[in-house]
Amino acid sequence: MQFTSERLDDNVLEREFTLGEIPGTLWTPESAGPVPLVLMAHNNGLPKSDPRLVARARYTAARGYAVATIDAAGCGERPRSAADEQARTELRRAMRAGEPVDEIFESFIGPLVENAVPEWQTTLDAVLALPGIGGPVGYSGGWTALGIRLAVVEPRIKAAGFFAGGYVPRAQREEARQVAIPLLFLLQWDDEGNPRERALELFDAFGTKEKTLHANLGGHTGTPWFELEDGCRFLDRHLK
Amino acid sequence: MQFTSERLDDNVLEREFTLGEIPGTLWTPESAGPVPLVLMAHNNGLPKSDPRLVARARYTAARGYAVATIDAAGCGERPRSAADEQARTELRRAMRAGEPVDEIFESFIGPLVENAVPEWQTTLDAVLALPGIGGPVGYSGGWTALGIRLAVVEPRIKAAGFFAGGYVPRAQREEARQVAIPLLFLLQWDDEGNPRERALELFDAFGTKEKTLHANLGGHTGTPWFELEDGCRFLDRHLK
Repeated sequence: MQFTSERLDDNVLEREFTLGEIPGTLWTPESAGPVPLVLMAHNNGLPKSDPRLVARARYTAARGYAVATIDAAGCGERPRSAADEQARTELRRAMRAGEPVDEIFESFIGPLVENAVPEWQTTLDAVLALPGIGGPVGYSGGWTALGIRLAVVEPRIKAAGFFAGGYVPRAQREEARQVAIPLLFLLQWDDEGNPRERALELFDAFGTKEKTLHANLGGHTGTPWFELEDGCRFLDRHLK
Repeated sequence: MQFTSERLDDNVLEREFTLGEIPGTLWTPESAGPVPLVLMAHNNGLPKSDPRLVARARYTAARGYAVATIDAAGCGERPRSAADEQARTELRRAMRAGEPVDEIFESFIGPLVENAVPEWQTTLDAVLALPGIGGPVGYSGGWTALGIRLAVVEPRIKAAGFFAGGYVPRAQREEARQVAIPLLFLLQWDDEGNPRERALELFDAFGTKEKTLHANLGGHTGTPWFELEDGCRFLDRHLK
Protein backbone atom coordinates (compact mmCIF):
# COMPACT_ATOMS: atom_id res chain seq x y z
CA MET A 1 0.00 0.00 0.00
CA GLN A 2 1.49 3.25 -1.18
CA PHE A 3 0.23 6.62 -0.08
CA THR A 4 0.51 9.08 -2.95
CA SER A 5 -0.87 12.25 -1.39
CA GLU A 6 -2.20 13.49 1.89
CA ARG A 7 -4.00 16.55 3.17
CA LEU A 8 -5.48 17.56 6.51
CA ASP A 9 -8.72 19.49 6.38
CA ASP A 10 -11.04 20.21 9.32
CA ASN A 11 -9.38 17.54 11.49
CA VAL A 12 -9.86 14.83 8.87
CA LEU A 13 -6.78 13.34 7.20
CA GLU A 14 -7.43 12.44 3.56
CA ARG A 15 -4.89 10.14 1.91
CA GLU A 16 -4.87 8.84 -1.65
CA PHE A 17 -3.28 5.42 -2.05
CA THR A 18 -2.57 2.73 -4.58
CA LEU A 19 -2.62 -0.97 -3.83
CA GLY A 20 -1.21 -2.65 -6.92
CA GLU A 21 -3.55 -1.45 -9.63
CA ILE A 22 -6.26 -0.36 -7.20
CA PRO A 23 -6.56 3.39 -6.55
CA GLY A 24 -8.16 4.29 -3.24
CA THR A 25 -8.77 7.03 -0.69
CA LEU A 26 -8.58 6.73 3.08
CA TRP A 27 -10.08 9.26 5.46
CA THR A 28 -9.21 9.16 9.16
CA PRO A 29 -10.01 11.41 12.09
CA GLU A 30 -7.02 13.30 13.45
CA SER A 31 -7.63 12.01 16.97
CA ALA A 32 -5.51 9.16 18.29
CA GLY A 33 -6.73 5.71 19.26
CA PRO A 34 -8.03 2.82 17.19
CA VAL A 35 -11.19 3.60 15.21
CA PRO A 36 -13.58 1.23 13.44
CA LEU A 37 -13.39 1.03 9.65
CA VAL A 38 -16.17 1.77 7.17
CA LEU A 39 -15.93 0.58 3.57
CA MET A 40 -17.78 3.15 1.51
CA ALA A 41 -18.82 2.56 -2.08
CA HIS A 42 -21.34 4.07 -4.37
CA ASN A 43 -22.73 3.59 -7.86
CA ASN A 44 -19.97 1.77 -9.72
CA GLY A 45 -20.16 4.25 -12.61
CA LEU A 46 -19.11 7.16 -10.43
CA PRO A 47 -15.48 7.75 -9.41
CA LYS A 48 -14.31 7.67 -5.81
CA SER A 49 -13.72 11.43 -6.13
CA ASP A 50 -17.43 12.10 -6.60
CA PRO A 51 -18.32 15.04 -4.31
CA ARG A 52 -21.26 13.28 -2.65
CA LEU A 53 -19.14 10.26 -1.75
CA VAL A 54 -16.35 12.51 -0.46
CA ALA A 55 -18.81 14.53 1.66
CA ARG A 56 -20.27 11.35 3.19
CA ALA A 57 -16.79 9.98 3.85
CA ARG A 58 -15.52 13.17 5.51
CA TYR A 59 -18.64 13.44 7.68
CA THR A 60 -18.27 9.82 8.77
CA ALA A 61 -14.55 10.21 9.50
CA ALA A 62 -15.26 13.28 11.62
CA ARG A 63 -17.64 11.08 13.63
CA GLY A 64 -14.73 8.80 14.58
CA TYR A 65 -14.33 6.29 11.77
CA ALA A 66 -11.66 5.37 9.27
CA VAL A 67 -13.34 5.40 5.86
CA ALA A 68 -11.90 3.66 2.80
CA THR A 69 -13.07 3.67 -0.78
CA ILE A 70 -11.60 2.36 -4.03
CA ASP A 71 -12.27 2.34 -7.73
CA ALA A 72 -12.51 -1.42 -8.33
CA ALA A 73 -11.74 -3.01 -11.71
CA GLY A 74 -13.99 -1.50 -14.40
CA CYS A 75 -15.44 1.04 -11.94
CA GLY A 76 -15.07 4.77 -11.48
CA GLU A 77 -12.00 6.01 -13.35
CA ARG A 78 -10.43 2.59 -13.96
CA PRO A 79 -9.97 1.68 -17.63
CA ARG A 80 -12.86 -0.16 -19.24
CA SER A 81 -13.11 -2.47 -22.21
CA ALA A 82 -15.03 -1.26 -25.25
CA ALA A 83 -17.67 -3.91 -24.46
CA ASP A 84 -18.07 -2.54 -20.93
CA GLU A 85 -18.38 1.01 -22.21
CA GLN A 86 -21.05 -0.11 -24.60
CA ALA A 87 -22.95 -2.02 -21.92
CA ARG A 88 -22.85 0.99 -19.61
CA THR A 89 -24.16 3.29 -22.33
CA GLU A 90 -26.92 0.81 -23.16
CA LEU A 91 -27.86 0.49 -19.46
CA ARG A 92 -28.19 4.26 -19.08
CA ARG A 93 -30.23 4.55 -22.24
CA ALA A 94 -32.59 1.73 -21.22
CA MET A 95 -33.09 3.17 -17.71
CA ARG A 96 -33.85 6.62 -19.10
CA ALA A 97 -36.28 5.12 -21.59
CA GLY A 98 -37.97 3.14 -18.82
CA GLU A 99 -37.21 -0.17 -20.57
CA PRO A 100 -36.52 -3.40 -18.61
CA VAL A 101 -32.87 -3.56 -17.61
CA ASP A 102 -32.68 -6.96 -15.93
CA GLU A 103 -30.79 -8.65 -18.74
CA ILE A 104 -28.21 -5.88 -18.99
CA PHE A 105 -27.81 -6.08 -15.23
CA GLU A 106 -27.19 -9.80 -15.35
CA SER A 107 -24.58 -9.67 -18.10
CA PHE A 108 -22.80 -6.47 -17.10
CA ILE A 109 -23.22 -5.67 -13.39
CA GLY A 110 -23.05 -9.31 -12.30
CA PRO A 111 -19.39 -9.81 -13.36
CA LEU A 112 -18.51 -6.32 -12.15
CA VAL A 113 -19.63 -7.31 -8.63
CA GLU A 114 -17.74 -10.62 -8.85
CA ASN A 115 -14.54 -8.84 -9.86
CA ALA A 116 -14.88 -6.02 -7.37
CA VAL A 117 -15.20 -8.20 -4.26
CA PRO A 118 -11.59 -9.51 -4.10
CA GLU A 119 -10.26 -5.99 -4.64
CA TRP A 120 -12.35 -4.68 -1.75
CA GLN A 121 -11.12 -7.58 0.40
CA THR A 122 -7.50 -6.83 -0.50
CA THR A 123 -8.16 -3.23 0.52
CA LEU A 124 -9.71 -4.39 3.79
CA ASP A 125 -6.59 -6.45 4.59
CA ALA A 126 -4.25 -3.56 3.82
CA VAL A 127 -6.19 -0.87 5.70
CA LEU A 128 -6.68 -3.04 8.78
CA ALA A 129 -2.91 -3.55 8.88
CA LEU A 130 -2.37 0.20 9.36
CA PRO A 131 -1.80 1.51 12.88
CA GLY A 132 -4.80 3.11 14.59
CA ILE A 133 -7.41 1.26 12.56
CA GLY A 134 -9.05 -1.81 13.97
CA GLY A 135 -12.10 -3.29 15.46
CA PRO A 136 -15.28 -4.13 13.63
CA VAL A 137 -15.85 -3.15 10.02
CA GLY A 138 -18.96 -1.66 8.44
CA TYR A 139 -20.14 -1.22 4.87
CA SER A 140 -21.95 1.89 3.77
CA GLY A 141 -22.84 2.55 0.23
CA GLY A 142 -25.04 3.02 -2.73
CA TRP A 143 -23.69 0.00 -4.54
CA THR A 144 -26.11 -2.41 -2.90
CA ALA A 145 -25.17 -5.48 -4.96
CA LEU A 146 -21.53 -5.16 -3.89
CA GLY A 147 -22.62 -4.63 -0.30
CA ILE A 148 -24.77 -7.77 -0.32
CA ARG A 149 -21.93 -9.89 -1.75
CA LEU A 150 -19.40 -8.47 0.73
CA ALA A 151 -21.80 -8.94 3.65
CA VAL A 152 -22.18 -12.61 2.70
CA VAL A 153 -18.52 -13.53 2.00
CA GLU A 154 -16.67 -11.25 4.43
CA PRO A 155 -17.16 -12.13 8.12
CA ARG A 156 -15.22 -9.06 9.27
CA ILE A 157 -18.15 -6.85 8.16
CA LYS A 158 -20.52 -6.51 11.13
CA ALA A 159 -23.12 -3.99 9.93
CA ALA A 160 -24.17 -2.51 6.60
CA GLY A 161 -26.03 0.52 5.31
CA PHE A 162 -27.43 0.20 1.78
CA PHE A 163 -28.86 2.95 -0.34
CA ALA A 164 -31.84 2.74 -2.66
CA GLY A 165 -31.04 -0.54 -4.32
CA GLY A 166 -34.07 -1.76 -6.13
CA TYR A 167 -32.04 -3.15 -9.00
CA VAL A 168 -29.47 -5.80 -8.13
CA PRO A 169 -28.38 -8.83 -10.15
CA ARG A 170 -30.28 -12.07 -9.59
CA ALA A 171 -27.35 -13.62 -7.71
CA GLN A 172 -27.49 -10.86 -5.09
CA ARG A 173 -31.29 -10.96 -4.89
CA GLU A 174 -30.86 -14.59 -3.87
CA GLU A 175 -27.88 -13.94 -1.62
CA ALA A 176 -29.91 -11.31 0.26
CA ARG A 177 -31.46 -14.15 2.28
CA GLN A 178 -27.99 -15.04 3.57
CA VAL A 179 -27.25 -11.56 4.90
CA ALA A 180 -27.26 -12.01 8.67
CA ILE A 181 -25.78 -8.73 9.94
CA PRO A 182 -27.71 -5.64 11.13
CA LEU A 183 -28.89 -3.58 8.18
CA LEU A 184 -30.05 -0.04 7.50
CA PHE A 185 -31.75 0.20 4.11
CA LEU A 186 -32.29 3.64 2.66
CA LEU A 187 -34.93 4.23 0.01
CA GLN A 188 -35.98 7.30 -1.96
CA TRP A 189 -39.74 6.98 -2.37
CA ASP A 190 -39.79 8.44 -5.91
CA ASP A 191 -36.44 7.13 -7.16
CA GLU A 192 -36.51 7.33 -10.94
CA GLY A 193 -34.00 4.53 -11.42
CA ASN A 194 -35.02 2.09 -8.68
CA PRO A 195 -38.62 0.88 -8.69
CA ARG A 196 -40.09 1.18 -5.19
CA GLU A 197 -41.72 -2.25 -5.35
CA ARG A 198 -38.36 -3.88 -6.11
CA ALA A 199 -36.66 -2.08 -3.25
CA LEU A 200 -39.38 -3.12 -0.77
CA GLU A 201 -39.12 -6.73 -1.98
CA LEU A 202 -35.37 -6.64 -1.50
CA PHE A 203 -35.75 -5.23 2.01
CA ASP A 204 -38.24 -8.01 2.75
CA ALA A 205 -35.82 -10.66 1.44
CA PHE A 206 -32.85 -9.89 3.69
CA GLY A 207 -32.37 -12.77 6.09
CA THR A 208 -31.10 -10.73 9.01
CA LYS A 209 -33.26 -10.40 12.11
CA GLU A 210 -32.25 -6.77 12.58
CA LYS A 211 -33.14 -4.57 9.65
CA THR A 212 -34.51 -1.05 9.41
CA LEU A 213 -35.89 0.73 6.37
CA HIS A 214 -35.74 4.51 6.08
CA ALA A 215 -37.76 5.95 3.20
CA ASN A 216 -37.96 9.60 2.28
CA LEU A 217 -39.94 11.50 -0.30
CA GLY A 218 -38.08 12.53 -3.44
CA GLY A 219 -35.89 11.30 -6.26
CA HIS A 220 -32.62 9.37 -6.37
CA THR A 221 -30.35 12.20 -5.27
CA GLY A 222 -32.81 13.80 -2.84
CA THR A 223 -31.84 11.95 0.34
CA PRO A 224 -32.20 14.44 3.21
CA TRP A 225 -29.08 15.44 5.15
CA PHE A 226 -30.34 13.92 8.41
CA GLU A 227 -30.00 10.43 6.93
CA LEU A 228 -26.23 10.93 6.97
CA GLU A 229 -26.43 11.49 10.71
CA ASP A 230 -28.86 8.58 11.16
CA GLY A 231 -26.47 6.37 9.19
CA CYS A 232 -23.61 7.21 11.55
CA ARG A 233 -25.81 6.55 14.56
CA PHE A 234 -26.64 3.15 13.11
CA LEU A 235 -22.91 2.43 12.71
CA ASP A 236 -22.28 3.72 16.25
CA ARG A 237 -24.75 1.17 17.62
CA HIS A 238 -23.00 -1.75 15.97
CA LEU A 239 -19.33 -0.82 15.59
CA LYS A 240 -18.50 1.22 18.68
CA MET B 1 -57.53 22.64 34.80
CA GLN B 2 -57.08 20.98 38.18
CA PHE B 3 -53.95 19.12 39.15
CA THR B 4 -54.88 16.14 41.32
CA SER B 5 -51.47 14.65 42.04
CA GLU B 6 -47.83 15.27 41.32
CA ARG B 7 -44.57 13.40 41.68
CA LEU B 8 -41.00 14.11 40.71
CA ASP B 9 -38.99 11.17 39.45
CA ASP B 10 -35.60 11.29 37.69
CA ASN B 11 -35.95 15.03 37.01
CA VAL B 12 -39.32 14.61 35.31
CA LEU B 13 -42.41 16.10 36.98
CA GLU B 14 -45.51 13.96 36.44
CA ARG B 15 -48.86 15.59 37.18
CA GLU B 16 -52.33 14.08 36.88
CA PHE B 17 -55.04 16.57 36.00
CA THR B 18 -58.72 16.85 35.21
CA LEU B 19 -60.18 19.28 32.75
CA GLY B 20 -63.94 19.07 33.22
CA GLU B 21 -64.61 15.40 32.55
CA ILE B 22 -61.28 14.81 30.82
CA PRO B 23 -58.58 13.03 32.85
CA GLY B 24 -55.04 13.70 31.70
CA THR B 25 -51.36 13.48 32.60
CA LEU B 26 -48.70 16.10 32.02
CA TRP B 27 -44.98 15.37 32.14
CA THR B 28 -42.49 18.25 32.20
CA PRO B 29 -38.72 18.40 32.58
CA GLU B 30 -37.56 19.89 35.86
CA SER B 31 -35.38 22.44 34.08
CA ALA B 32 -36.64 26.01 33.73
CA GLY B 33 -37.44 27.82 30.50
CA PRO B 34 -40.26 27.36 28.02
CA VAL B 35 -40.33 23.95 26.35
CA PRO B 36 -42.28 22.79 23.28
CA LEU B 37 -45.36 20.63 23.85
CA VAL B 38 -45.95 17.12 22.53
CA LEU B 39 -49.46 15.64 22.49
CA MET B 40 -49.00 11.91 22.95
CA ALA B 41 -51.76 9.40 22.30
CA HIS B 42 -51.86 5.72 21.64
CA ASN B 43 -54.36 3.02 20.78
CA ASN B 44 -57.68 4.41 22.01
CA GLY B 45 -58.46 1.16 23.84
CA LEU B 46 -55.48 1.52 26.16
CA PRO B 47 -55.53 3.87 29.16
CA LYS B 48 -53.18 6.83 29.51
CA SER B 49 -51.51 4.91 32.35
CA ASP B 50 -50.32 2.17 29.97
CA PRO B 51 -46.65 1.52 30.83
CA ARG B 52 -45.43 1.85 27.24
CA LEU B 53 -47.09 5.26 26.85
CA VAL B 54 -45.72 6.40 30.20
CA ALA B 55 -42.20 5.26 29.28
CA ARG B 56 -42.33 7.13 25.96
CA ALA B 57 -43.71 10.23 27.68
CA ARG B 58 -41.05 10.23 30.42
CA TYR B 59 -38.23 9.73 27.89
CA THR B 60 -39.55 12.58 25.74
CA ALA B 61 -39.96 14.90 28.74
CA ALA B 62 -36.39 14.16 29.82
CA ARG B 63 -35.32 15.30 26.34
CA GLY B 64 -36.80 18.75 26.98
CA TYR B 65 -40.48 18.56 26.12
CA ALA B 66 -43.76 18.98 27.95
CA VAL B 67 -45.82 15.90 27.16
CA ALA B 68 -49.59 15.74 27.59
CA THR B 69 -51.97 12.84 27.22
CA ILE B 70 -55.64 12.34 28.00
CA ASP B 71 -58.27 9.65 27.98
CA ALA B 72 -60.75 11.18 25.53
CA ALA B 73 -64.47 10.35 25.61
CA GLY B 74 -64.99 6.60 25.21
CA CYS B 75 -61.22 5.96 25.34
CA GLY B 76 -58.91 4.42 27.91
CA GLU B 77 -60.61 4.30 31.29
CA ARG B 78 -63.49 6.67 30.43
CA PRO B 79 -66.98 5.12 30.72
CA ARG B 80 -68.32 3.50 27.58
CA SER B 81 -71.82 2.77 26.37
CA ALA B 82 -72.86 -0.87 26.11
CA ALA B 83 -72.91 -0.43 22.32
CA ASP B 84 -69.30 0.81 22.36
CA GLU B 85 -68.20 -2.10 24.54
CA GLN B 86 -69.82 -4.49 22.13
CA ALA B 87 -68.25 -2.83 19.08
CA ARG B 88 -64.82 -2.96 20.73
CA THR B 89 -65.22 -6.64 21.55
CA GLU B 90 -66.36 -7.36 18.00
CA LEU B 91 -63.42 -5.41 16.55
CA ARG B 92 -60.90 -7.39 18.61
CA ARG B 93 -62.53 -10.68 17.68
CA ALA B 94 -62.58 -9.84 13.95
CA MET B 95 -58.90 -8.70 13.97
CA ARG B 96 -57.80 -11.86 15.76
CA ALA B 97 -59.79 -13.97 13.30
CA GLY B 98 -58.22 -12.10 10.37
CA GLU B 99 -61.65 -10.96 9.13
CA PRO B 100 -62.17 -7.62 7.37
CA VAL B 101 -62.65 -4.86 9.92
CA ASP B 102 -63.32 -1.85 7.68
CA GLU B 103 -67.02 -1.63 8.45
CA ILE B 104 -66.47 -1.85 12.22
CA PHE B 105 -63.83 0.84 11.86
CA GLU B 106 -66.20 3.13 10.03
CA SER B 107 -69.07 2.79 12.49
CA PHE B 108 -67.06 2.68 15.72
CA ILE B 109 -63.63 4.33 15.37
CA GLY B 110 -64.90 7.09 13.07
CA PRO B 111 -67.15 8.74 15.71
CA LEU B 112 -64.52 8.08 18.41
CA VAL B 113 -62.03 10.21 16.43
CA GLU B 114 -64.64 12.92 15.81
CA ASN B 115 -65.45 13.12 19.53
CA ALA B 116 -61.83 12.95 20.70
CA VAL B 117 -60.57 15.90 18.63
CA PRO B 118 -62.33 18.74 20.55
CA GLU B 119 -61.19 17.22 23.86
CA TRP B 120 -57.58 17.16 22.66
CA GLN B 121 -57.95 20.76 21.49
CA THR B 122 -59.37 21.82 24.88
CA THR B 123 -56.37 20.12 26.46
CA LEU B 124 -54.04 21.94 24.08
CA ASP B 125 -55.54 25.31 25.06
CA ALA B 126 -55.25 24.56 28.78
CA VAL B 127 -51.71 23.20 28.71
CA LEU B 128 -50.39 26.03 26.53
CA ALA B 129 -51.80 28.49 29.09
CA LEU B 130 -49.50 27.05 31.80
CA PRO B 131 -46.24 28.87 32.56
CA GLY B 132 -43.08 27.38 31.02
CA ILE B 133 -44.87 25.66 28.14
CA GLY B 134 -44.99 27.27 24.76
CA GLY B 135 -43.74 27.36 21.26
CA PRO B 136 -44.58 24.85 18.58
CA VAL B 137 -46.62 21.73 19.27
CA GLY B 138 -46.01 18.22 18.05
CA TYR B 139 -48.12 15.08 17.94
CA SER B 140 -46.64 11.69 18.64
CA GLY B 141 -48.71 8.61 18.89
CA GLY B 142 -50.01 5.28 17.92
CA TRP B 143 -53.52 6.53 17.31
CA THR B 144 -52.85 7.51 13.71
CA ALA B 145 -56.45 8.40 12.81
CA LEU B 146 -56.61 10.93 15.65
CA GLY B 147 -53.21 12.29 14.64
CA ILE B 148 -54.31 12.77 11.02
CA ARG B 149 -57.47 14.60 12.06
CA LEU B 150 -55.59 16.82 14.53
CA ALA B 151 -52.86 17.57 11.99
CA VAL B 152 -55.50 18.74 9.54
CA VAL B 153 -57.70 20.84 11.85
CA GLU B 154 -55.17 22.16 14.36
CA PRO B 155 -52.68 24.70 12.92
CA ARG B 156 -50.69 24.83 16.16
CA ILE B 157 -49.40 21.30 15.46
CA LYS B 158 -46.18 21.65 13.45
CA ALA B 159 -44.86 18.08 13.19
CA ALA B 160 -46.25 14.60 13.78
CA GLY B 161 -44.94 11.11 14.44
CA PHE B 162 -47.38 8.29 13.67
CA PHE B 163 -47.00 4.67 14.61
CA ALA B 164 -47.98 1.68 12.52
CA GLY B 165 -51.34 2.88 11.33
CA GLY B 166 -52.45 0.70 8.50
CA TYR B 167 -56.07 0.79 9.58
CA VAL B 168 -57.69 4.20 9.75
CA PRO B 169 -61.30 5.16 8.98
CA ARG B 170 -62.09 6.22 5.41
CA ALA B 171 -62.44 9.88 6.41
CA GLN B 172 -58.83 9.93 7.67
CA ARG B 173 -57.54 7.99 4.66
CA GLU B 174 -58.91 10.84 2.57
CA GLU B 175 -57.77 13.56 4.93
CA ALA B 176 -54.22 12.17 4.78
CA ARG B 177 -53.77 14.12 1.52
CA GLN B 178 -54.37 17.36 3.43
CA VAL B 179 -51.65 16.71 6.00
CA ALA B 180 -49.01 19.31 5.18
CA ILE B 181 -46.66 19.17 8.19
CA PRO B 182 -43.41 17.15 8.49
CA LEU B 183 -44.15 13.53 9.29
CA LEU B 184 -42.31 10.54 10.72
CA PHE B 185 -44.24 7.33 10.04
CA LEU B 186 -43.25 4.25 11.99
CA LEU B 187 -44.10 0.79 10.72
CA GLN B 188 -43.57 -2.69 12.12
CA TRP B 189 -42.87 -4.89 9.09
CA ASP B 190 -44.75 -7.91 10.47
CA ASP B 191 -47.51 -6.11 12.40
CA GLU B 192 -50.28 -8.63 12.99
CA GLY B 193 -53.01 -6.00 13.25
CA ASN B 194 -51.95 -3.53 10.54
CA PRO B 195 -51.49 -4.90 7.02
CA ARG B 196 -48.18 -3.69 5.58
CA GLU B 197 -49.71 -2.84 2.20
CA ARG B 198 -52.25 -0.58 3.88
CA ALA B 199 -49.61 1.21 5.90
CA LEU B 200 -47.42 1.79 2.82
CA GLU B 201 -50.46 3.14 0.92
CA LEU B 202 -51.22 5.49 3.78
CA PHE B 203 -47.62 6.72 3.86
CA ASP B 204 -47.83 7.30 0.12
CA ALA B 205 -51.08 9.26 0.49
CA PHE B 206 -49.87 11.92 2.93
CA GLY B 207 -49.80 15.27 1.15
CA THR B 208 -46.79 16.69 2.99
CA LYS B 209 -43.56 17.25 1.09
CA GLU B 210 -41.49 16.14 4.09
CA LYS B 211 -42.23 12.61 5.21
CA THR B 212 -40.02 9.79 6.40
CA LEU B 213 -40.90 6.14 6.88
CA HIS B 214 -39.05 3.99 9.43
CA ALA B 215 -39.82 0.28 9.18
CA ASN B 216 -38.41 -2.39 11.46
CA LEU B 217 -38.70 -6.14 11.49
CA GLY B 218 -41.11 -7.62 13.99
CA GLY B 219 -44.67 -7.50 15.27
CA HIS B 220 -46.86 -4.70 16.59
CA THR B 221 -45.17 -4.27 19.96
CA GLY B 222 -41.62 -4.98 18.73
CA THR B 223 -40.51 -1.44 17.87
CA PRO B 224 -36.81 -1.21 18.76
CA TRP B 225 -35.76 1.22 21.49
CA PHE B 226 -33.70 3.38 19.12
CA GLU B 227 -36.91 4.54 17.40
CA LEU B 228 -37.78 6.39 20.59
CA GLU B 229 -34.55 8.32 20.26
CA ASP B 230 -35.06 8.82 16.51
CA GLY B 231 -38.57 10.12 17.22
CA CYS B 232 -37.19 12.74 19.61
CA ARG B 233 -34.55 13.74 17.08
CA PHE B 234 -37.32 14.23 14.52
CA LEU B 235 -39.20 16.46 17.00
CA ASP B 236 -35.97 18.33 17.78
CA ARG B 237 -35.55 19.19 14.10
CA HIS B 238 -39.02 20.72 13.85
CA LEU B 239 -39.95 22.03 17.29
CA LYS B 240 -36.70 23.35 18.76
